[in-house]
Amino acid sequence: MSGAQPTLNGVPGFRLGGVSAGIKKRGGLDLGVIVADAVVACAGVYTTNLVVAAPVVQSRAKLAAAPRARVVIVNSGNANACTGARGEVDAAEMAKAAADAVGCDVRDVQVCSTGVIGAPLPVERVRDALPRLLDVTRVDGLPDFARAIMTTDTRPKQRGVRLTIDGREITIAGACKGAGMIHPNMATMLGFVLTDAPIAEADLVAVWGRVAGRTFNAISVDGDTSTNDTALCLASGAAGGAPLQGDALTRFEAALEQVAGELARDIVRDAEGATKLVAVTVQGAPSDADARRAANAIATSPLVKTALHGEDPNWGRMVAAVGRSGCPIDTARVRVAVGETTVFAANAWAGAEAEQAAHATMKTPEYGVTLDLGLGEGRFTVFTCDLSGDYVRINADYRS
Amino acid sequence: MSGAQPTLNGVPGFRLGGVSAGIKKRGGLDLGVIVADAVVACAGVYTTNLVVAAPVVQSRAKLAAAPRARVVIVNSGNANACTGARGEVDAAEMAKAAADAVGCDVRDVQVCSTGVIGAPLPVERVRDALPRLLDVTRVDGLPDFARAIMTTDTRPKQRGVRLTIDGREITIAGACKGAGMIHPNMATMLGFVLTDAPIAEADLVAVWGRVAGRTFNAISVDGDTSTNDTALCLASGAAGGAPLQGDALTRFEAALEQVAGELARDIVRDAEGATKLVAVTVQGAPSDADARRAANAIATSPLVKTALHGEDPNWGRMVAAVGRSGCPIDTARVRVAVGETTVFAANAWAGAEAEQAAHATMKTPEYGVTLDLGLGEGRFTVFTCDLSGDYVRINADYRS
Repeated sequence: MSGAQPTLNGVPGFRLGGVSAGIKKRGGLDLGVIVADAVVACAGVYTTNLVVAAPVVQSRAKLAAAPRARVVIVNSGNANACTGARGEVDAAEMAKAAADAVGCDVRDVQVCSTGVIGAPLPVERVRDALPRLLDVTRVDGLPDFARAIMTTDTRPKQRGVRLTIDGREITIAGACKGAGMIHPNMATMLGFVLTDAPIAEADLVAVWGRVAGRTFNAISVDGDTSTNDTALCLASGAAGGAPLQGDALTRFEAALEQVAGELARDIVRDAEGATKLVAVTVQGAPSDADARRAANAIATSPLVKTALHGEDPNWGRMVAAVGRSGCPIDTARVRVAVGETTVFAANAWAGAEAEQAAHATMKTPEYGVTLDLGLGEGRFTVFTCDLSGDYVRINADYRS
Repeated sequence: MSGAQPTLNGVPGFRLGGVSAGIKKRGGLDLGVIVADAVVACAGVYTTNLVVAAPVVQSRAKLAAAPRARVVIVNSGNANACTGARGEVDAAEMAKAAADAVGCDVRDVQVCSTGVIGAPLPVERVRDALPRLLDVTRVDGLPDFARAIMTTDTRPKQRGVRLTIDGREITIAGACKGAGMIHPNMATMLGFVLTDAPIAEADLVAVWGRVAGRTFNAISVDGDTSTNDTALCLASGAAGGAPLQGDALTRFEAALEQVAGELARDIVRDAEGATKLVAVTVQGAPSDADARRAANAIATSPLVKTALHGEDPNWGRMVAAVGRSGCPIDTARVRVAVGETTVFAANAWAGAEAEQAAHATMKTPEYGVTLDLGLGEGRFTVFTCDLSGDYVRINADYRS
């Protein structure tokens, strides 16, 4: 499951940086910015939770009106969620302060907040820190930006690739944060991917919708959706030439998926208490949507996730999860494999030898589980992690 | 949350018993039976999982054709699920053996199996034990029956009430089993409630559907639905007189809900690793169905359940769970209370004093959490438990 590398520190056409603005109680970088050299194409995918933080409401509305941006300003340590009318004013002021500092239209500023839910955002600290933040931005500033957006993450997450498309060298790089919703309420997943490829706005929106669906929207730590989830893709066009079309655009989409997919999997790798990254693939479903429902039911089942933790090839729990998912299933046609080993097929357990082989696969930190339903061509993969006692300890810890 | 008492050991019109048939590897009672003196009204509610065990398929079809039964035969230690064509033959043979032994029509025999998934049922042991089992049945045999249906339950679960309706003394009593799906795969919840009240078949089906919806279908241990869940209600009419109607039927329904509700809550009290029984009530929703969706999202959220374990009045996680449930929500109208203490209202945290009071409530073993959405009249309560490190340990234990 490797691919994009964590070594590319920037993308032509963008400057990035991060500073400490004093928002996080324990200190450290907590304000990050991406500034494009000019207004660029920008596509966004946001949380589907009906409880939505003020910055998400405002940023989503801006991209719905016109899919472009000049600035992305992100604070960690405070989610500005469940903060009512004051939260709306604070999010708007944060955008206005960034627009004034950069010298652009406020409609071209995307605002993201992540951290504690229900506490007022100290927006004056954002305003005070902005001149200092813009001073430190640089083309290779992705590592600082990646640190500035962290909350309970144990490590920064950045990934990138370089490839040649139609004779043009294209860079795609990005960063994300997320590790589950945590003490007292960290809200939760943010992802940012930049490219210098020239892409028409409408194409970027379509491509990013598909890619996010297969990456940031295809991971599960605990099945909870946060109030602040945002994934943005910005394309500067600095690589030059006409907008990518046809095969070139398809190649770009594949590379974008590689970067976004690695970032998304980095979130699962760093999930609270997790020790395994498991790709749950459902294939042979009547449709892709059915496969997605079935894979999500498996990937979020506490019984399956504790079995993953116990390195137990417990096909019964996986089959039972599909049965309640809404996806059609006929157990006589189902085949369950852990890695390459079939553990259940045609209503029969594959025996002790197969189970031992599967158990050995499950001792490794990253592997796949496949359920072939034998009913059609539908297919979907969700990345999940095990459910450990550490997850309970981290999340049960009383806020003191 | 008390009500029906665990002291009534039988109901006029029925004989019950339990024996050891050698199905459970570790020994103990594993075959139970309820025999009505004649064919009686019987209503059933079964798992909605598409992966359905053979006994459920057959028993469900019988009650769909005619809601009546003479015999309920139940084995523990083997679920007869994911066992293919052989499983179907075994379930049918178990019914036939019981019908032959009692001397009734096989269509009047309900068969239930609970225990390990995927292993063939040793149906010859059931057949061999049947004469012995019928020998030990008696009117006050509910305690033996309750023991015979246990799998990983730490204690038998029986409840009953006696009341007078229209001058007739009516008894309602029953037993259930369930503690979560467990090692290697225990499948899972069974509930049986008997009454001597005279009830027309169609009324019993309607009443039991409603009562099961508010009791056995309103509890959550881990959000997983098993392949074998069955809840049966049998009415012998031995109390005499014409079938209950109108207000009398309504009073009966309330008493039935009391018994079924206590049995259902006993399952949550005995849930794997659980230390708390928490009633999650969502009220003020646009509809009861919306309230149910929202309450279920809260009751199954790992983040909420770990917070319950940590005795943390974490309203943010509850509000966020409603936000992804499909139930409408406007946080400005939401009030969250733990016990009697409001911890969040009108987009504002209620402060440290309220939080300490809520924390004190959460130290008790049984309490309620209420989310008033302020949008309508919809209301639903789900009973859930905390998610503990013990749950993970029990379910992650590798099958050796």
